[in-house]
Amino acid sequence: MLMSELIMKKRDGGELSRDEIRFIIEGYTKGEIPDYQVSAFLMAVFFQGMSTRETLDLTMAMVESGEVLNLSSVSGIKADKHSTGGVGDKTSLVLCPIVAALGVKMAKMSGRGLGHTGGTIDKLESFPGFTCALTLDRFLENVDKVGFAIAEQTANLDPADKKLYALRDVTGTVAAPSLIVSSIMSKKLAAGADMIVLDVKTGRGSFQRSDEDAFALARAMVDVGRLAGKKTVAVVTDMEEPLGHAVGNALEVREAISALKGEYKGELMELCLTLGSCILTEAGVAAGMEAARIMLEKTIADGSALCKLAEFVRAQGGDDRAVYDDSLLPRAPVVMDVPSPAAGYVSSIAAEAVGLLNVRLGGGRVTKESIIDLSVGLALRKKVGDRVEKGESLAAIHAGSRKSAEEAAKLLTDCYVFSQEKPEKKPFIRGIVR
Amino acid sequence: MLMSELIMKKRDGGELSRDEIRFIIEGYTKGEIPDYQVSAFLMAVFFQGMSTRETLDLTMAMVESGEVLNLSSVSGIKADKHSTGGVGDKTSLVLCPIVAALGVKMAKMSGRGLGHTGGTIDKLESFPGFTCALTLDRFLENVDKVGFAIAEQTANLDPADKKLYALRDVTGTVAAPSLIVSSIMSKKLAAGADMIVLDVKTGRGSFQRSDEDAFALARAMVDVGRLAGKKTVAVVTDMEEPLGHAVGNALEVREAISALKGEYKGELMELCLTLGSCILTEAGVAAGMEAARIMLEKTIADGSALCKLAEFVRAQGGDDRAVYDDSLLPRAPVVMDVPSPAAGYVSSIAAEAVGLLNVRLGGGRVTKESIIDLSVGLALRKKVGDRVEKGESLAAIHAGSRKSAEEAAKLLTDCYVFSQEKPEKKPFIRGIVR
Repeated sequence: MLMSELIMKKRDGGELSRDEIRFIIEGYTKGEIPDYQVSAFLMAVFFQGMSTRETLDLTMAMVESGEVLNLSSVSGIKADKHSTGGVGDKTSLVLCPIVAALGVKMAKMSGRGLGHTGGTIDKLESFPGFTCALTLDRFLENVDKVGFAIAEQTANLDPADKKLYALRDVTGTVAAPSLIVSSIMSKKLAAGADMIVLDVKTGRGSFQRSDEDAFALARAMVDVGRLAGKKTVAVVTDMEEPLGHAVGNALEVREAISALKGEYKGELMELCLTLGSCILTEAGVAAGMEAARIMLEKTIADGSALCKLAEFVRAQGGDDRAVYDDSLLPRAPVVMDVPSPAAGYVSSIAAEAVGLLNVRLGGGRVTKESIIDLSVGLALRKKVGDRVEKGESLAAIHAGSRKSAEEAAKLLTDCYVFSQEKPEKKPFIRGIVR
Repeated sequence: MLMSELIMKKRDGGELSRDEIRFIIEGYTKGEIPDYQVSAFLMAVFFQGMSTRETLDLTMAMVESGEVLNLSSVSGIKADKHSTGGVGDKTSLVLCPIVAALGVKMAKMSGRGLGHTGGTIDKLESFPGFTCALTLDRFLENVDKVGFAIAEQTANLDPADKKLYALRDVTGTVAAPSLIVSSIMSKKLAAGADMIVLDVKTGRGSFQRSDEDAFALARAMVDVGRLAGKKTVAVVTDMEEPLGHAVGNALEVREAISALKGEYKGELMELCLTLGSCILTEAGVAAGMEAARIMLEKTIADGSALCKLAEFVRAQGGDDRAVYDDSLLPRAPVVMDVPSPAAGYVSSIAAEAVGLLNVRLGGGRVTKESIIDLSVGLALRKKVGDRVEKGESLAAIHAGSRKSAEEAAKLLTDCYVFSQEKPEKKPFIRGIVR
């Protein structure tokens, strides 16, 4: 088999066989096929696409490029969740405790933030002493005993994706649907859970700018997951504006704790209850979505979910008193309100720009090597559809200095768009794809 | 400027500015932009194409990646010719002498054969002692005194094309029209002639499988040449079957000598007279195509063209007696006739397969490092449209051994297709693009 001929086959709209796809992925992972042939191939895939069968074969070839996590030592049903990424997305911090409190295990591999999106591991490091660098044995033990654990992705899971993603990032080939699907699904399949729930974002703060694109991606991922023998559900959710009110590592942890205490309602809670209900019904723990929701709400009302979070923090070396005592979490020295420049309704908030504002404040990474300040960020007080008076606070900036707070306040004002009439909002949960 | 952004701009159908194109070509030639980004870019160009302006800018950026040959020390008008490649193409060996005999100079850079197509330099090395490895001074002196010279392409002319071509060859991006145009025209522009005549092949033995593609390529090359300030003409010619009757290095030299002696008529002569007439009229040496043709035919009738070939061979170190004494050229030990398996008319001859047959006999290169046998090849006796009886000779195989001759004879039979009715032939010269 010649790589140059496979490139031309895809370039001319041909469908690659399973063996041909394996040849490419194996050869690339082993370093036998050079980057320059793979990048030309990826661009051909960008233009010609891949059938569901090709995407499945690509996904499986990527899974087989490394180890597959063996969760058999963990009792019960193991679920995994993936989000396509957004701003202010602290879903895992709420979802894992409420689901684990009901006995469904979650073994999550997670990453760090880069660019305008945050990462769950960074957020969790707001708990003093907390670590995601667990040995495999410790990780499995924690999942089994606590009900969930969150670890850094290990190098030996899905090495093909690591190499491919780095290449796609610099060759304009990130946005090809079949490449997105195989990248996400191969990681999830390698992580070994029985069930996968996907949070597919739609709107200006996400990669999928239209609902149509988001539903197509959701469909493609669910198809591949099911063909690979896993229970898979996708929820398409709004990312026109940041999720919830907090953006920034420690601030998001505070918001997640509020949610688990039942103090915080709104879209973040709606999302966690929907994702959780999908997991419980697919797992057969609840009879239906309604029943599942009631069970999940009870874990908040009775404190068992919050308790589960504390147990998890402690099991990964963190100071679990911070779950109950907010003053133990990092706190920025300067907090500054941003007055609204106009009266009216908030008609949009540029999510990506808000995410980049957090990076500018020092709370996110410009490069993989950046050192971040967990205390900084933004607490939005007004979200889309909210009425605001001129001079009323739109948000609070949490910053390391007065100067950076002032700079951020100015930029944040530009993220807001106002209208005189109350804007129509699409439903936050756009739909569920099974 | 970020290369990844330029890739995405082209991917999304954008038109690149002159500065953006220069950034890519300069960066790539200097090794600052890696192969894997350029190959993704080339694949995006394959799908999105380039405007005439972009193609001109790409061509000029490639020209400027290295030196431009200065032909000012050569008196008179300097012409250059390029063929898009085919089987049995010994045009330069006839064209250069007939044009030079009329005072128009030809300074030709040429290459060696690879795969199914031959190279002029290999063919010329059939003359004992002949070399194309000339110093620049010697090359210019020969062009000026003899009227033409043929040298190997030097490394410092158009280095961008060398790098790009090697990359395109292994990434499925050879066939993009704007990349073909810029590759050919940048080399020609760097070679410094005043006038460029292009022989664009069409048909199954060439890269352009349809007349439509061939005319589009011819138009695009002529446009770029003229916009770059050079007189440029393209002739679109048939490559459905091999050109002329001989395929193989020394055999092609013999055919060229026959043509210059006036013993050989047919399509090879028609092609050389047409290309030559384009040169003479563009140069202002002849009043029109008809007048030019008469002048060119006279160089054959009066022996001045053959004399010019001998002068050229001598000037490049070769034994010019071989021009008059055929026995001094390499001769294969085995010559075997191939009997026709059927009676009827020859309806097609697979040109590419015939070219590969010569490679198999040892007369062409599989890799750049292959050592070739100049004596072997095929002398076709029957061409498309010819009547043939069963058992009559289709061709003579010239081989190093009986075994390889027998093997080739069998394969050659498969290159021929027969019909009961005389096939219609398209005109050999499809058209001229100015």
